Parts: sequence; C-alpha cells; structure tokens
Amino acid sequence: MNDNTSEKSRLTLLGLGAMGTALARAWLAAGHPLTVWNRTSSRAEPLAAEGATVAVTVAEAVTASDLVVICLLDDASVGEALADADLTGKDLVNLTTGTPAQARARAEWAERRGARFLDGGIMAVPPMIGAPESGGYVFYSGSRALFDARHSALAIPAGTVYVGEDPGFAALHDVALLSAMTGMFAGISHAFALIRKEDIAPKDFAPLLVDWLTAMAPSAYEIAGHLESGDYTRGVVSNLAMMVEGNSTLLRTAEEQGVSAELLTPFTALMERRLAGGHGDEGTTGVIDLLTR
Amino acid sequence: MNDNTSEKSRLTLLGLGAMGTALARAWLAAGHPLTVWNRTSSRAEPLAAEGATVAVTVAEAVTASDLVVICLLDDASVGEALADADLTGKDLVNLTTGTPAQARARAEWAERRGARFLDGGIMAVPPMIGAPESGGYVFYSGSRALFDARHSALAIPAGTVYVGEDPGFAALHDVALLSAMTGMFAGISHAFALIRKEDIAPKDFAPLLVDWLTAMAPSAYEIAGHLESGDYTRGVVSNLAMMVEGNSTLLRTAEEQGVSAELLTPFTALMERRLAGGHGDEGTTGVIDLLTR
Repeated sequence: MNDNTSEKSRLTLLGLGAMGTALARAWLAAGHPLTVWNRTSSRAEPLAAEGATVAVTVAEAVTASDLVVICLLDDASVGEALADADLTGKDLVNLTTGTPAQARARAEWAERRGARFLDGGIMAVPPMIGAPESGGYVFYSGSRALFDARHSALAIPAGTVYVGEDPGFAALHDVALLSAMTGMFAGISHAFALIRKEDIAPKDFAPLLVDWLTAMAPSAYEIAGHLESGDYTRGVVSNLAMMVEGNSTLLRTAEEQGVSAELLTPFTALMERRLAGGHGDEGTTGVIDLLTR
Repeated sequence: MNDNTSEKSRLTLLGLGAMGTALARAWLAAGHPLTVWNRTSSRAEPLAAEGATVAVTVAEAVTASDLVVICLLDDASVGEALADADLTGKDLVNLTTGTPAQARARAEWAERRGARFLDGGIMAVPPMIGAPESGGYVFYSGSRALFDARHSALAIPAGTVYVGEDPGFAALHDVALLSAMTGMFAGISHAFALIRKEDIAPKDFAPLLVDWLTAMAPSAYEIAGHLESGDYTRGVVSNLAMMVEGNSTLLRTAEEQGVSAELLTPFTALMERRLAGGHGDEGTTGVIDLLTR
C-alpha cells in the first residue's frame, strides 16, 4: 500500500549505538523517511544503504524533521550534542538512559528552547525492537500532546505505555522495574549457588525456579493493596513472624552448602527490624517503610 | 463410590499446626482413615468431629498405621516426639521444615530404626492444601520405593515432585526456591519504595511490575545453560559491562528518591567484582561462582 508511505512523517534520530541502530531499522522498515546522525559517522553507513539520510552535523539533522528522537550515551551527551541546535517548534523524544531528575531538568531545558519534550524508558534490548511479539515496550512521560500527536511513529519500534505528564516518571518506572529485576536476579543467583555442588542438573532446576517465581510475582498485588489501604495485614497468610522463622532455615542451609548469604541478609535483616517493631502479623510490606525513612 | 473407600490406606499424622490441620482435612475429605496426634491435644478435637481417630500418645499413633506423616515444629521436635516409638517396618514421611543436612541425618536415624524414609518440602501455604487448582506441591526425596508405594495417598493434599534418592534434596530444592523468592521480594520492595513519594498509584504500578518480573524470570534458563556449558557468554544480549553501567543509574535514582540502596548494593558489588575480573562479555552467571568460592 504505497498510498500510506507519503503520510508517514519524517523523523530524525540522534545516536546510533546498538539501540539507536535497532530503532532506525524499525522506522526504515515501516517506511518512515529517516535522517540519522552519530558522532562517529561510520556507524551511519549501513543505514544509508538501507535508505536513511545521513546528516553531517546535529544542526542539519535537527533541521530535517519536526520530530527528533534522541538515543545517546547519557544525559550529558544530550546537552553537548544539542548545545547549539535551534529547537524552536521541535518535538523532542529523549530515549537516552537517565534518572528521573535528569529527565525533569532536560524537560525544562527543552521548554526554555521552545520545544515540546517527551522522555522515554526502553523496556527492551535491541533484538526486541521492531518485533512486536517480543513484548518489548517503552515508558513515556512528559508532554501528552506530543505523545498523542506522534503516537503512530512512536508505536513502530515497540509498544508504548504513557505514565504521566511528570517527565521523570518514564525513567522512574524504568528504574523501578530494573531494580526489581536486580533483586530477582540476586535471588536466582543464590538459588543456583545452593545446588551448585550437588548432583542436580541446572537445566532440571531452572523450570522449577521459573515456575515458582512466576507464581509468586503476583504477591506485588497484595503489597500494592497494603500500600493503598495502609493495612499491611490484609490477606496475609504467611506472616512476618513465620517468614523470619523460616529465614533461619534459609541462612543455615546457605552455610551448610558453603554459599555466602550476602544476597539474602539485607532483606532478612529488614524483616527482623520490622518484626522487632511489633509487626509480626503483617506481610513484608513494612520493609518498604524502613527503606524510605 | 463407596467401593474405593476400603482400599484407601490408613495414615497417621503427627503434628496439627496450621499445615498439619490442612493436611489432615485433605486426607479425611478424600476418605482416608486417619489417626492424628498433637502435643496439645485440644487441636485434635475439631478433626475428631470430622472423623479422625485421636491418639493420646505418639506410640499409639505410630502403631495405628504403616504410613506415618510427620509435620512438627522443627527437626528437634521430630527426634523428641519419636524417641521411644517402635518404627520397625514403618514408612516415615517427614514434612517438617528443616535443612538438607537435618533431612540426611533424619534419614539415617530412620534407617537405623528399621523404617523407610522420605523427606518433603511443602511449596504451598495451608489454604492451598487440598486445592489442586492452587498449584501447590511438595518436593519429595529419599526412598523412591516408599514414594512409589504411597503415591496415591501423598498426592491427595498437593502435587508431588520427586527430586532424588538423596534425602536432603527436597529441603534443598525448597530452600533454593524460597531463597530466590526472598531476592524477588527484596527487589519488589525496593521498586515500591522508589515510587512511594510520587503521584503513582501502587495498584497501577503493580501490574507493570508483575508482568516485567514474569517476562524476566525465564532468564534462569539462560543461566542454567551457562552453568551446564561453562560458557557464561552464550546468548548474552545485555552483558555485564552494560549492566554495571546501568546500575549507576539505578543507584543514583535510589539516592534521588531518598531510598536506601541496601537491597541493591550486594548484587551490584558482586557484578562489579566479576567485571573487574575481566568478564564484561558475560551475563550475571559468574556471580554464582563468587558466592560459592
């Protein structure tokens, strides 16, 4: 359907690392006219062969399109690259990894320069970009008007989840989910360490572990209910007193198996502090209070 | 179908805490003749009304059935309760929480006294017992002959997963999965702490968190493949060098949000140690080596 090609808006993409290159290919494959720029211009050559226009300077790249997507190394690189560009009337979509505070400051910076601003946090690795079945998506926050106006182009590389006008919220959601994953990976690492020296095949153990974590992940709904209601005992079956008792078996087993308990003890210590505070009938939700105090 | 009732074997159950009581009800509901004993006999009264025979002494309870299921407070309680009982020719199934070493020692103790022994680790909370749709199950290890001979009775309260002749393996699998869950809960707690002071509803955040953890849990298959092959770089997309770089954003965000990073830093420190060892092209699998050294 060549009719549609002409309707597809031109985009500019700054930054051709692994993620930027994957984004570029997704837009090119969908028929979007694309201008690219990268500090090291050799990275743009394969994309030129695939139909991208290669800009020699950032100013040239920014002039080429009203929608400018930024996927650079870090927030400082964004400031440097765009220091002298005219951003008046532009729609800036910043997919560069950063903290919520960096995104908020960058939004103010963009506004001062006459641009609308949307920040994004990519919940995908490059091979998942342009592959909707992979389940990858991007958190967006900031200008809702920009998000709505540009949605058809933004939805090409991955799913979109808009999480609010606060430009820091995309990064905050991104970091929160990656932090939770870090905890899960710590738990998975400890579990494999425990069976390591035994005659247990990791490939037989892995499905048990995956099924168990998948079954237990929805505990987050109970915790959300506790935080919403302020009642941390609601629906609790395995309470803090019982869990702390059970922790002693976990720690003794680590010792028996010759495994350092360093990945377990920070959480067990917080559970014990909360229990000592007289909250034995709660679940683990009170640990969150201890972290944020 | 009353025909079948007579074929159902008599069981003895020692211990009527929340879990023991749930087990007793499941067997009674399935028509198994059941003898129960509890140190505090008042806990047996409701079960007597439901058809259980209440034994006054452990010796009397053990004499009543060839299959004796034990669900007491801890391993020491098992030794105390059964100190004087005649266990010759009995099938002992120990569902008491304990470490792998305790299960192995208990298996030797049972063998010396002329009993077959099976240890179990219950992956369920009491409300999941007798409810097959709950997905709860019990790890079993030890005598395969006992497991096979008694499977129809053992399968009544929950699913069964036999993990080997080594009597410590049920407890080891149980503890490994609970340890992994502890890590995941630590990650979930940190994630909720990050959004706590923002205008983000926990009930809106929870499904994003659950979906993400569910999507990422299968990373355990990649780790298992690394451990089996010894090649920790196989199939790695997001490598250790990139992850350590990303960790700085996680830690800075925690600081911005006023959240203690104590649940993140033990794992990030291990990742940094492994990276410093020259393994930047690996995934996180090498952390397991650092834990078991």
